Amino acid sequence: MLIIGELINGMYRQIGKAIEDKDKRPIQNVAKQQVERGATVLDVNTGPLAKDPVEVMKWLTDVIQEATNVSLCFDSTRPAVIEAGLKCAKNKAMINSTTADDEKLNTLLPLAKKYNARIIGLTTDKGGVPRDRYKRSELAMKIMSSCLEHGVDLEDVYIDPIVLPVNVAQPQAVEVLESIREFRVISDPPPKTVVGLSNVSQGTKQRSLINRTFLVMAAASGLAAAIVDPLDKELMDAMITAELILGRNIYCDSYLEAYRKR
Amino acid sequence: MLIIGELINGMYRQIGKAIEDKDKRPIQNVAKQQVERGATVLDVNTGPLAKDPVEVMKWLTDVIQEATNVSLCFDSTRPAVIEAGLKCAKNKAMINSTTADDEKLNTLLPLAKKYNARIIGLTTDKGGVPRDRYKRSELAMKIMSSCLEHGVDLEDVYIDPIVLPVNVAQPQAVEVLESIREFRVISDPPPKTVVGLSNVSQGTKQRSLINRTFLVMAAASGLAAAIVDPLDKELMDAMITAELILGRNIYCDSYLEAYRKR
Repeated sequence: MLIIGELINGMYRQIGKAIEDKDKRPIQNVAKQQVERGATVLDVNTGPLAKDPVEVMKWLTDVIQEATNVSLCFDSTRPAVIEAGLKCAKNKAMINSTTADDEKLNTLLPLAKKYNARIIGLTTDKGGVPRDRYKRSELAMKIMSSCLEHGVDLEDVYIDPIVLPVNVAQPQAVEVLESIREFRVISDPPPKTVVGLSNVSQGTKQRSLINRTFLVMAAASGLAAAIVDPLDKELMDAMITAELILGRNIYCDSYLEAYRKR
Repeated sequence: MLIIGELINGMYRQIGKAIEDKDKRPIQNVAKQQVERGATVLDVNTGPLAKDPVEVMKWLTDVIQEATNVSLCFDSTRPAVIEAGLKCAKNKAMINSTTADDEKLNTLLPLAKKYNARIIGLTTDKGGVPRDRYKRSELAMKIMSSCLEHGVDLEDVYIDPIVLPVNVAQPQAVEVLESIREFRVISDPPPKTVVGLSNVSQGTKQRSLINRTFLVMAAASGLAAAIVDPLDKELMDAMITAELILGRNIYCDSYLEAYRKR
Protein backbone atom coordinates (compact mmCIF):
# COMPACT_ATOMS: atom_id res chain seq x y z
CA MET A 1 0.00 0.00 0.00
CA LEU A 2 1.21 3.46 -0.86
CA ILE A 3 1.60 5.25 2.48
CA ILE A 4 1.18 9.00 2.25
CA GLY A 5 2.39 10.70 5.44
CA GLU A 6 0.01 13.40 6.62
CA LEU A 7 2.05 15.21 9.25
CA ILE A 8 3.42 18.15 7.26
CA ASN A 9 0.40 20.38 7.57
CA GLY A 10 0.40 23.96 8.78
CA MET A 11 -2.72 23.11 10.74
CA TYR A 12 -0.53 21.26 13.25
CA ARG A 13 0.84 23.70 15.79
CA GLN A 14 4.49 22.67 15.52
CA ILE A 15 4.48 22.84 11.72
CA GLY A 16 2.48 26.06 11.64
CA LYS A 17 5.00 27.69 13.93
CA ALA A 18 7.97 26.40 11.91
CA ILE A 19 6.40 27.87 8.77
CA GLU A 20 5.91 31.22 10.50
CA ASP A 21 9.47 31.24 11.84
CA LYS A 22 10.96 29.91 8.59
CA ASP A 23 12.54 27.23 10.76
CA LYS A 24 13.53 24.27 8.59
CA ARG A 25 14.45 21.82 11.30
CA PRO A 26 11.05 20.77 12.70
CA ILE A 27 9.76 20.24 9.17
CA GLN A 28 12.77 18.24 8.05
CA ASN A 29 12.60 16.14 11.21
CA VAL A 30 8.95 15.26 10.68
CA ALA A 31 9.68 14.52 7.02
CA LYS A 32 12.52 12.14 7.91
CA GLN A 33 10.59 10.43 10.70
CA GLN A 34 7.66 9.71 8.39
CA VAL A 35 9.92 8.24 5.73
CA GLU A 36 11.73 6.09 8.30
CA ARG A 37 8.39 4.71 9.46
CA GLY A 38 7.26 3.69 5.98
CA ALA A 39 5.83 6.72 4.17
CA THR A 40 6.77 6.69 0.48
CA VAL A 41 4.95 9.92 -0.26
CA LEU A 42 4.66 12.99 1.96
CA ASP A 43 1.57 15.16 1.91
CA VAL A 44 2.40 18.88 2.04
CA ASN A 45 -0.23 21.34 3.18
CA THR A 46 0.55 24.95 4.08
CA GLY A 47 -2.43 25.07 6.44
CA PRO A 48 -5.27 27.59 6.25
CA LEU A 49 -3.40 30.43 7.94
CA ALA A 50 -0.36 30.78 5.67
CA LYS A 51 -0.24 34.41 4.54
CA ASP A 52 1.34 33.70 1.16
CA PRO A 53 0.56 30.04 0.53
CA VAL A 54 2.27 29.99 -2.90
CA GLU A 55 5.54 31.10 -1.36
CA VAL A 56 5.08 28.80 1.64
CA MET A 57 4.47 25.80 -0.63
CA LYS A 58 7.66 26.54 -2.59
CA TRP A 59 9.64 26.91 0.62
CA LEU A 60 8.20 23.72 2.16
CA THR A 61 8.95 21.76 -1.00
CA ASP A 62 12.59 22.90 -1.07
CA VAL A 63 13.01 22.31 2.66
CA ILE A 64 11.57 18.77 2.54
CA GLN A 65 13.58 17.89 -0.57
CA GLU A 66 16.77 18.95 1.16
CA ALA A 67 16.11 16.30 3.80
CA THR A 68 14.45 13.40 1.95
CA ASN A 69 14.14 11.93 -1.50
CA VAL A 70 10.50 10.82 -1.58
CA SER A 71 7.55 11.92 -3.66
CA LEU A 72 5.49 14.85 -2.47
CA CYS A 73 1.74 15.21 -2.53
CA PHE A 74 0.68 18.83 -2.85
CA ASP A 75 -2.44 19.39 -0.82
CA SER A 76 -4.43 22.58 -1.32
CA THR A 77 -7.81 23.77 -2.48
CA ARG A 78 -6.00 26.38 -4.60
CA PRO A 79 -4.54 25.25 -7.93
CA ALA A 80 -1.86 27.99 -7.86
CA VAL A 81 -0.53 26.62 -4.57
CA ILE A 82 -0.44 23.09 -5.97
CA GLU A 83 1.36 24.28 -9.09
CA ALA A 84 3.96 26.09 -6.93
CA GLY A 85 4.84 22.69 -5.45
CA LEU A 86 4.71 20.84 -8.76
CA LYS A 87 7.19 23.33 -10.29
CA CYS A 88 9.76 22.62 -7.56
CA ALA A 89 9.20 18.85 -7.27
CA LYS A 90 12.22 16.68 -8.09
CA ASN A 91 10.34 13.35 -8.07
CA LYS A 92 7.02 12.24 -9.50
CA ALA A 93 4.52 14.31 -7.56
CA MET A 94 0.88 13.90 -6.55
CA ILE A 95 -1.98 16.39 -6.61
CA ASN A 96 -4.35 16.42 -3.63
CA SER A 97 -6.98 16.89 -5.01
CA THR A 98 -9.63 17.46 -7.63
CA THR A 99 -13.36 16.98 -7.10
CA ALA A 100 -15.73 15.79 -9.81
CA ASP A 101 -16.70 19.37 -10.66
CA ASP A 102 -15.90 20.44 -14.21
CA GLU A 103 -14.07 23.63 -13.17
CA LYS A 104 -11.80 21.63 -10.88
CA LEU A 105 -11.22 18.85 -13.41
CA ASN A 106 -10.52 21.31 -16.19
CA THR A 107 -7.98 23.15 -14.03
CA LEU A 108 -6.23 20.32 -12.21
CA LEU A 109 -6.11 17.58 -14.85
CA PRO A 110 -4.07 19.78 -17.21
CA LEU A 111 -1.64 20.30 -14.31
CA ALA A 112 -1.43 16.53 -13.75
CA LYS A 113 -0.74 16.08 -17.46
CA LYS A 114 1.79 18.92 -17.67
CA TYR A 115 3.81 17.79 -14.65
CA ASN A 116 3.23 14.03 -15.18
CA ALA A 117 1.82 13.89 -11.67
CA ARG A 118 -0.43 11.47 -9.87
CA ILE A 119 -3.78 12.93 -8.89
CA ILE A 120 -6.36 12.20 -6.20
CA GLY A 121 -9.97 12.51 -7.37
CA LEU A 122 -12.54 13.01 -4.62
CA THR A 123 -15.99 11.59 -5.30
CA THR A 124 -17.76 14.78 -4.41
CA ASP A 125 -19.09 17.75 -6.34
CA LYS A 126 -21.19 20.80 -5.68
CA GLY A 127 -23.95 18.45 -4.59
CA GLY A 128 -21.81 17.46 -1.61
CA VAL A 129 -20.47 14.13 -0.41
CA PRO A 130 -22.63 11.26 -1.72
CA ARG A 131 -24.67 9.26 0.79
CA ASP A 132 -24.22 5.91 -0.95
CA ARG A 133 -21.85 3.78 -3.03
CA TYR A 134 -23.80 4.28 -6.28
CA LYS A 135 -23.37 8.04 -6.40
CA ARG A 136 -19.73 7.59 -5.42
CA SER A 137 -19.24 5.23 -8.38
CA GLU A 138 -20.99 7.67 -10.70
CA LEU A 139 -18.63 10.49 -9.68
CA ALA A 140 -15.61 8.17 -9.89
CA MET A 141 -16.60 7.33 -13.47
CA LYS A 142 -16.93 11.00 -14.29
CA ILE A 143 -13.43 11.68 -12.95
CA MET A 144 -11.94 8.71 -14.84
CA SER A 145 -13.49 9.73 -18.13
CA SER A 146 -12.34 13.31 -17.66
CA CYS A 147 -8.81 11.96 -17.04
CA LEU A 148 -9.01 10.06 -20.33
CA GLU A 149 -10.12 13.22 -22.14
CA HIS A 150 -7.24 15.21 -20.67
CA GLY A 151 -4.70 12.52 -21.50
CA VAL A 152 -3.87 11.74 -17.86
CA ASP A 153 -2.50 8.22 -17.46
CA LEU A 154 -5.18 6.21 -15.61
CA GLU A 155 -2.41 4.48 -13.64
CA ASP A 156 -1.77 7.85 -12.00
CA VAL A 157 -5.34 8.36 -10.78
CA TYR A 158 -6.37 7.62 -7.19
CA ILE A 159 -10.07 7.84 -6.44
CA ASP A 160 -10.98 8.88 -2.89
CA PRO A 161 -14.50 7.82 -1.85
CA ILE A 162 -14.34 10.25 1.10
CA VAL A 163 -14.35 8.77 4.55
CA LEU A 164 -16.62 10.47 7.07
CA PRO A 165 -16.37 10.37 10.87
CA VAL A 166 -17.99 7.25 12.28
CA ASN A 167 -19.39 9.22 15.20
CA VAL A 168 -21.59 11.41 12.99
CA ALA A 169 -22.06 9.37 9.81
CA GLN A 170 -21.78 5.76 10.95
CA PRO A 171 -23.53 4.11 7.95
CA GLN A 172 -21.10 5.81 5.56
CA ALA A 173 -18.23 3.56 6.64
CA VAL A 174 -19.76 0.52 4.94
CA GLU A 175 -20.64 2.61 1.87
CA VAL A 176 -16.98 3.61 1.55
CA LEU A 177 -15.75 0.02 1.96
CA GLU A 178 -18.19 -1.22 -0.67
CA SER A 179 -17.30 1.69 -2.97
CA ILE A 180 -13.64 0.70 -2.92
CA ARG A 181 -14.74 -2.77 -4.00
CA GLU A 182 -17.12 -1.52 -6.68
CA PHE A 183 -14.67 0.97 -8.20
CA ARG A 184 -12.69 -2.05 -9.38
CA VAL A 185 -15.12 -2.61 -12.24
CA ILE A 186 -15.57 0.91 -13.57
CA SER A 187 -12.60 0.98 -15.89
CA ASP A 188 -9.79 -1.16 -17.26
CA PRO A 189 -7.29 -0.74 -15.69
CA PRO A 190 -9.43 -0.07 -12.63
CA PRO A 191 -8.80 3.16 -10.77
CA LYS A 192 -6.59 2.95 -7.74
CA THR A 193 -8.20 4.06 -4.51
CA VAL A 194 -7.05 6.20 -1.61
CA VAL A 195 -8.56 7.34 1.67
CA GLY A 196 -7.79 10.14 4.08
CA LEU A 197 -7.87 7.69 6.95
CA SER A 198 -7.89 9.78 10.09
CA ASN A 199 -11.21 11.35 9.15
CA VAL A 200 -12.97 8.13 10.14
CA SER A 201 -12.10 8.65 13.79
CA GLN A 202 -12.42 12.45 13.96
CA GLY A 203 -14.00 13.46 17.25
CA THR A 204 -13.94 9.95 18.74
CA LYS A 205 -12.08 8.80 21.84
CA GLN A 206 -10.45 5.73 20.24
CA ARG A 207 -8.75 7.34 17.27
CA SER A 208 -5.89 4.92 16.70
CA LEU A 209 -8.01 1.79 17.21
CA ILE A 210 -10.75 2.99 14.87
CA ASN A 211 -8.19 4.15 12.28
CA ARG A 212 -6.37 0.84 12.11
CA THR A 213 -9.52 -1.25 12.15
CA PHE A 214 -10.95 0.72 9.24
CA LEU A 215 -7.64 0.59 7.36
CA VAL A 216 -7.53 -3.22 7.62
CA MET A 217 -11.06 -3.45 6.23
CA ALA A 218 -10.27 -1.01 3.43
CA ALA A 219 -7.13 -3.01 2.56
CA ALA A 220 -9.30 -6.13 2.26
CA SER A 221 -11.61 -4.18 -0.08
CA GLY A 222 -8.63 -3.42 -2.32
CA LEU A 223 -7.38 -0.03 -1.15
CA ALA A 224 -4.19 1.04 -2.95
CA ALA A 225 -3.08 4.04 -0.89
CA ALA A 226 -3.82 5.83 2.36
CA ILE A 227 -3.06 9.22 3.83
CA VAL A 228 -2.09 8.37 7.41
CA ASP A 229 0.11 9.16 10.38
CA PRO A 230 2.98 6.74 9.77
CA LEU A 231 4.32 7.38 13.29
CA ASP A 232 1.38 5.36 14.66
CA LYS A 233 3.22 2.05 15.04
CA GLU A 234 0.13 -0.03 15.70
CA LEU A 235 -1.46 1.36 12.56
CA MET A 236 1.56 0.44 10.48
CA ASP A 237 1.74 -3.05 12.07
CA ALA A 238 -1.92 -3.57 11.20
CA MET A 239 -1.36 -2.38 7.62
CA ILE A 240 1.68 -4.62 7.13
CA THR A 241 -0.22 -7.59 8.56
CA ALA A 242 -3.23 -6.86 6.36
CA GLU A 243 -0.97 -6.90 3.31
CA LEU A 244 0.51 -10.20 4.51
CA ILE A 245 -2.92 -11.81 4.82
CA LEU A 246 -3.86 -10.48 1.39
CA GLY A 247 -0.74 -12.07 -0.08
CA ARG A 248 0.92 -8.77 -0.99
CA ASN A 249 3.98 -9.59 1.14
CA ILE A 250 5.45 -13.08 1.34
CA TYR A 251 5.30 -14.62 4.81
CA CYS A 252 8.42 -14.90 6.92
CA ASP A 253 8.61 -15.00 10.71
CA SER A 254 10.02 -11.49 10.80
CA TYR A 255 7.64 -10.08 8.18
CA LEU A 256 7.16 -6.80 10.12
CA GLU A 257 10.87 -6.08 10.21
CA ALA A 258 11.34 -7.29 6.64
CA TYR A 259 8.68 -4.87 5.43
CA ARG A 260 10.24 -1.99 7.33
CA LYS A 261 13.71 -2.69 5.97
CA ARG A 262 12.74 -2.90 2.33
CA MET B 1 -20.58 -11.47 16.43
CA LEU B 2 -21.13 -14.71 18.31
CA ILE B 3 -17.96 -15.20 20.34
CA ILE B 4 -17.19 -18.84 21.10
CA GLY B 5 -14.50 -19.14 23.78
CA GLU B 6 -11.91 -21.75 22.91
CA LEU B 7 -10.03 -22.16 26.18
CA ILE B 8 -11.73 -25.24 27.65
CA ASN B 9 -9.75 -27.82 25.76
CA GLY B 10 -7.93 -30.77 27.34
CA MET B 11 -5.08 -30.03 24.94
CA TYR B 12 -4.14 -27.04 27.13
CA ARG B 13 -1.94 -28.21 29.99
CA GLN B 14 -3.89 -26.57 32.81
CA ILE B 15 -7.22 -27.92 31.57
CA GLY B 16 -5.78 -31.36 30.79
CA LYS B 17 -4.45 -31.61 34.33
CA ALA B 18 -7.75 -30.42 35.85
CA ILE B 19 -9.57 -33.12 33.89
CA GLU B 20 -7.14 -35.76 35.09
CA ASP B 21 -7.41 -34.60 38.70
CA LYS B 22 -11.17 -34.09 38.52
CA ASP B 23 -10.45 -30.58 39.79
CA LYS B 24 -13.41 -28.35 38.99
CA ARG B 25 -11.91 -25.01 39.95
CA PRO B 26 -9.50 -24.30 37.05
CA ILE B 27 -12.22 -25.21 34.57
CA GLN B 28 -14.86 -23.07 36.23
CA ASN B 29 -12.42 -20.18 36.47
CA VAL B 30 -11.59 -20.32 32.77
CA ALA B 31 -15.29 -20.63 31.97
CA LYS B 32 -16.18 -17.57 34.03
CA GLN B 33 -13.27 -15.50 32.72
CA GLN B 34 -14.27 -16.18 29.12
CA VAL B 35 -17.88 -15.18 29.77
CA GLU B 36 -16.78 -12.00 31.56
CA ARG B 37 -14.67 -11.06 28.55
CA GLY B 38 -17.50 -11.48 26.06
CA ALA B 39 -17.89 -15.15 25.13
CA THR B 40 -21.54 -16.06 24.72
CA VAL B 41 -20.77 -19.69 23.88
CA LEU B 42 -18.03 -21.88 25.34
CA ASP B 43 -16.35 -24.55 23.27
CA VAL B 44 -15.78 -27.77 25.23
CA ASN B 45 -13.16 -30.23 24.05
CA THR B 46 -11.93 -33.12 26.19
CA GLY B 47 -8.60 -33.11 24.39
CA PRO B 48 -7.09 -36.08 22.58
CA LEU B 49 -5.75 -37.79 25.71
CA ALA B 50 -8.93 -38.21 27.76
CA LYS B 51 -9.23 -41.91 28.63
CA ASP B 52 -13.02 -42.00 28.67
CA PRO B 53 -14.03 -38.96 26.64
CA VAL B 54 -17.78 -39.63 26.97
CA GLU B 55 -17.52 -39.49 30.75
CA VAL B 56 -15.16 -36.51 30.62
CA MET B 57 -17.56 -34.57 28.37
CA LYS B 58 -20.44 -35.21 30.78
CA TRP B 59 -18.33 -34.12 33.72
CA LEU B 60 -17.05 -30.99 31.95
CA THR B 61 -20.58 -30.02 30.93
CA ASP B 62 -21.88 -30.32 34.49
CA VAL B 63 -18.87 -28.51 35.94
CA ILE B 64 -19.15 -25.58 33.49
CA GLN B 65 -22.91 -25.31 33.95
CA GLU B 66 -22.44 -25.09 37.71
CA ALA B 67 -20.39 -21.94 37.17
CA THR B 68 -21.95 -20.20 34.16
CA ASN B 69 -25.19 -20.01 32.27
CA VAL B 70 -24.02 -19.76 28.64
CA SER B 71 -24.43 -22.07 25.67
CA LEU B 72 -21.90 -24.83 25.17
CA CYS B 73 -20.33 -25.97 21.93
CA PHE B 74 -19.43 -29.65 22.04
CA ASP B 75 -16.24 -30.17 20.13
CA SER B 76 -15.18 -33.69 19.20
CA THR B 77 -14.57 -35.89 16.19
CA ARG B 78 -16.66 -38.60 17.93
CA PRO B 79 -20.45 -38.28 17.76
CA ALA B 80 -20.90 -40.23 21.03
CA VAL B 81 -18.82 -37.64 22.86
CA ILE B 82 -20.84 -34.80 21.36
CA GLU B 83 -24.10 -36.53 22.30
CA ALA B 84 -22.89 -36.97 25.87
CA GLY B 85 -22.63 -33.16 26.10
CA LEU B 86 -25.92 -32.53 24.31
CA LYS B 87 -27.76 -34.78 26.79
CA CYS B 88 -26.53 -32.73 29.76
CA ALA B 89 -26.82 -29.26 28.18
CA LYS B 90 -29.26 -26.89 29.85
CA ASN B 91 -29.18 -24.20 27.15
CA LYS B 92 -29.32 -24.34 23.36
CA ALA B 93 -26.13 -26.17 22.45
CA MET B 94 -23.84 -26.21 19.43
CA ILE B 95 -22.19 -29.15 17.65
CA ASN B 96 -18.57 -28.70 16.54
CA SER B 97 -18.60 -30.12 13.89
CA THR B 98 -19.73 -32.04 10.83
CA THR B 99 -17.83 -32.24 7.57
CA ALA B 100 -19.52 -32.50 4.17
CA ASP B 101 -19.11 -36.29 4.16
CA ASP B 102 -22.39 -38.23 4.03
CA GLU B 103 -21.54 -40.46 7.02
CA LYS B 104 -20.84 -37.41 9.17
CA LEU B 105 -23.90 -35.51 7.94
CA ASN B 106 -26.16 -38.53 8.44
CA THR B 107 -24.88 -39.02 11.98
CA LEU B 108 -24.59 -35.45 13.25
CA LEU B 109 -27.55 -33.74 11.59
CA PRO B 110 -30.03 -36.10 13.33
CA LEU B 111 -28.34 -35.14 16.61
CA ALA B 112 -28.71 -31.43 15.80
CA LYS B 113 -32.39 -32.05 15.03
CA LYS B 114 -33.05 -34.22 18.11
CA TYR B 115 -31.42 -31.78 20.54
CA ASN B 116 -32.44 -28.59 18.67
CA ALA B 117 -28.75 -27.64 18.56
CA ARG B 118 -26.77 -25.29 16.38
CA ILE B 119 -24.21 -27.05 14.18
CA ILE B 120 -20.92 -26.06 12.56
CA GLY B 121 -20.40 -27.49 9.08
CA LEU B 122 -16.81 -27.62 7.87
CA THR B 123 -16.31 -27.22 4.13
CA THR B 124 -14.11 -30.28 3.88
CA ASP B 125 -14.65 -33.91 2.98
CA LYS B 126 -12.57 -36.99 2.32
CA GLY B 127 -10.93 -35.07 -0.50
CA GLY B 128 -9.38 -32.74 2.10
CA VAL B 129 -9.59 -28.98 2.60
CA PRO B 130 -10.46 -27.19 -0.65
CA ARG B 131 -7.85 -24.98 -2.26
CA ASP B 132 -10.30 -22.35 -3.50
CA ARG B 133 -13.54 -20.54 -2.79
CA TYR B 134 -15.50 -22.44 -5.46
CA LYS B 135 -15.01 -25.88 -3.93
CA ARG B 136 -15.73 -24.38 -0.50
CA SER B 137 -19.04 -23.03 -1.81
CA GLU B 138 -19.87 -26.40 -3.35
CA LEU B 139 -19.33 -28.17 -0.03
CA ALA B 140 -21.25 -25.45 1.85
CA MET B 141 -24.18 -26.01 -0.51
CA LYS B 142 -24.01 -29.75 0.09
CA ILE B 143 -24.12 -29.20 3.87
CA MET B 144 -27.01 -26.75 3.61
CA SER B 145 -29.10 -29.08 1.45
CA SER B 146 -28.39 -31.98 3.78
CA CYS B 147 -29.58 -29.81 6.69
CA LEU B 148 -32.81 -29.13 4.83
CA GLU B 149 -33.31 -32.87 4.23
CA HIS B 150 -32.76 -33.63 7.90
CA GLY B 151 -35.10 -30.88 9.04
CA VAL B 152 -32.38 -28.83 10.73
CA ASP B 153 -33.34 -25.14 10.97
CA LEU B 154 -31.03 -23.25 8.57
CA GLU B 155 -30.78 -20.46 11.16
CA ASP B 156 -28.86 -22.92 13.32
CA VAL B 157 -26.21 -23.76 10.73
CA TYR B 158 -22.76 -22.13 10.77
CA ILE B 159 -20.53 -22.89 7.80
CA ASP B 160 -16.79 -22.91 8.53
CA PRO B 161 -14.65 -22.34 5.42
CA ILE B 162 -11.59 -23.62 7.31
CA VAL B 163 -8.84 -21.14 7.99
CA LEU B 164 -5.30 -22.41 7.36
CA PRO B 165 -2.07 -21.06 8.82
CA VAL B 166 -0.80 -18.06 6.87
CA ASN B 167 2.81 -19.26 7.24
CA VAL B 168 2.18 -22.43 5.22
CA ALA B 169 -0.89 -21.65 3.10
CA GLN B 170 -0.74 -17.90 2.59
CA PRO B 171 -3.01 -17.71 -0.50
CA GLN B 172 -5.77 -19.54 1.40
CA ALA B 173 -6.47 -16.51 3.59
CA VAL B 174 -8.00 -14.56 0.71
CA GLU B 175 -9.92 -17.65 -0.45
CA VAL B 176 -11.51 -17.91 3.00
CA LEU B 177 -12.37 -14.20 3.10
CA GLU B 178 -13.98 -14.39 -0.33
CA SER B 179 -15.77 -17.64 0.62
CA ILE B 180 -17.45 -15.92 3.57
CA ARG B 181 -18.68 -13.27 1.14
CA GLU B 182 -19.82 -15.79 -1.48
CA PHE B 183 -21.64 -18.06 0.96
CA ARG B 184 -24.15 -15.22 1.38
CA VAL B 185 -25.82 -16.11 -1.91
CA ILE B 186 -26.07 -19.90 -1.65
CA SER B 187 -29.35 -20.09 0.26
CA ASP B 188 -32.16 -17.94 1.60
CA PRO B 189 -31.67 -17.31 4.47
CA PRO B 190 -27.95 -17.42 3.81
CA PRO B 191 -25.86 -19.69 6.01
CA LYS B 192 -24.15 -18.06 8.91
CA THR B 193 -20.38 -18.39 8.94
CA VAL B 194 -17.83 -19.21 11.60
CA VAL B 195 -14.06 -19.54 11.72
CA GLY B 196 -11.65 -21.21 14.11
CA LEU B 197 -9.60 -18.04 14.21
CA SER B 198 -6.35 -18.98 15.90
CA ASN B 199 -5.50 -21.42 13.14
CA VAL B 200 -4.58 -18.49 10.88
CA SER B 201 -1.56 -17.65 13.05
CA GLN B 202 -0.51 -21.18 14.01
CA GLY B 203 3.27 -21.41 14.03
CA THR B 204 3.82 -17.68 13.48
CA LYS B 205 5.56 -15.24 15.80
CA GLN B 206 2.85 -12.56 15.74
CA ARG B 207 -0.15 -14.62 16.76
CA SER B 208 -2.33 -11.96 18.36
CA LEU B 209 -1.66 -9.36 15.65
CA ILE B 210 -2.37 -11.79 12.81
CA ASN B 211 -5.47 -13.14 14.58
CA ARG B 212 -7.06 -9.75 15.09
CA THR B 213 -6.17 -8.45 11.64
CA PHE B 214 -7.75 -11.50 10.01
CA LEU B 215 -10.82 -11.28 12.28
CA VAL B 216 -11.43 -7.66 11.27
CA MET B 217 -11.25 -8.65 7.59
CA ALA B 218 -13.56 -11.62 8.14
CA ALA B 219 -16.02 -9.39 9.98
CA ALA B 220 -16.06 -7.07 6.97
CA SER B 221 -16.78 -10.09 4.76
CA GLY B 222 -19.84 -10.87 6.89
CA LEU B 223 -18.60 -13.37 9.48
CA ALA B 224 -21.28 -14.24 12.05
CA ALA B 225 -19.27 -16.15 14.67
CA ALA B 226 -15.71 -16.92 15.68
CA ILE B 227 -14.01 -19.42 17.91
CA VAL B 228 -11.41 -17.31 19.72
CA ASP B 229 -9.52 -16.62 22.91
CA PRO B 230 -11.74 -13.97 24.49
CA LEU B 231 -9.05 -13.16 27.05
CA ASP B 232 -7.05 -11.48 24.24
CA LYS B 233 -8.16 -7.92 24.96
CA GLU B 234 -6.74 -6.43 21.78
CA LEU B 235 -8.59 -9.06 19.74
CA MET B 236 -11.86 -8.22 21.45
CA ASP B 237 -11.25 -4.46 21.04
CA ALA B 238 -10.64 -5.01 17.33
CA MET B 239 -13.78 -7.14 17.00
CA ILE B 240 -15.94 -4.59 18.83
CA THR B 241 -14.51 -1.77 16.67
CA ALA B 242 -15.08 -3.79 13.49
CA GLU B 243 -18.73 -4.24 14.45
CA LEU B 244 -18.95 -0.50 15.13
CA ILE B 245 -17.61 0.37 11.70
CA LEU B 246 -19.98 -2.16 10.13
CA GLY B 247 -22.90 -0.48 11.91
CA ARG B 248 -23.72 -3.47 14.10
CA ASN B 249 -23.26 -1.40 17.27
CA ILE B 250 -24.42 2.19 17.53
CA TYR B 251 -21.60 4.68 18.09
CA CYS B 252 -21.08 6.27 21.46
CA ASP B 253 -17.81 7.61 22.89
CA SER B 254 -17.59 4.67 25.30
CA TYR B 255 -18.62 2.04 22.74
CA LEU B 256 -16.01 -0.47 23.98
CA GLU B 257 -17.31 -0.34 27.54
CA ALA B 258 -20.93 -0.25 26.38
CA TYR B 259 -20.40 -3.44 24.37
CA ARG B 260 -18.74 -5.16 27.30
CA LYS B 261 -21.51 -4.22 29.71
CA ARG B 262 -24.41 -5.38 27.60
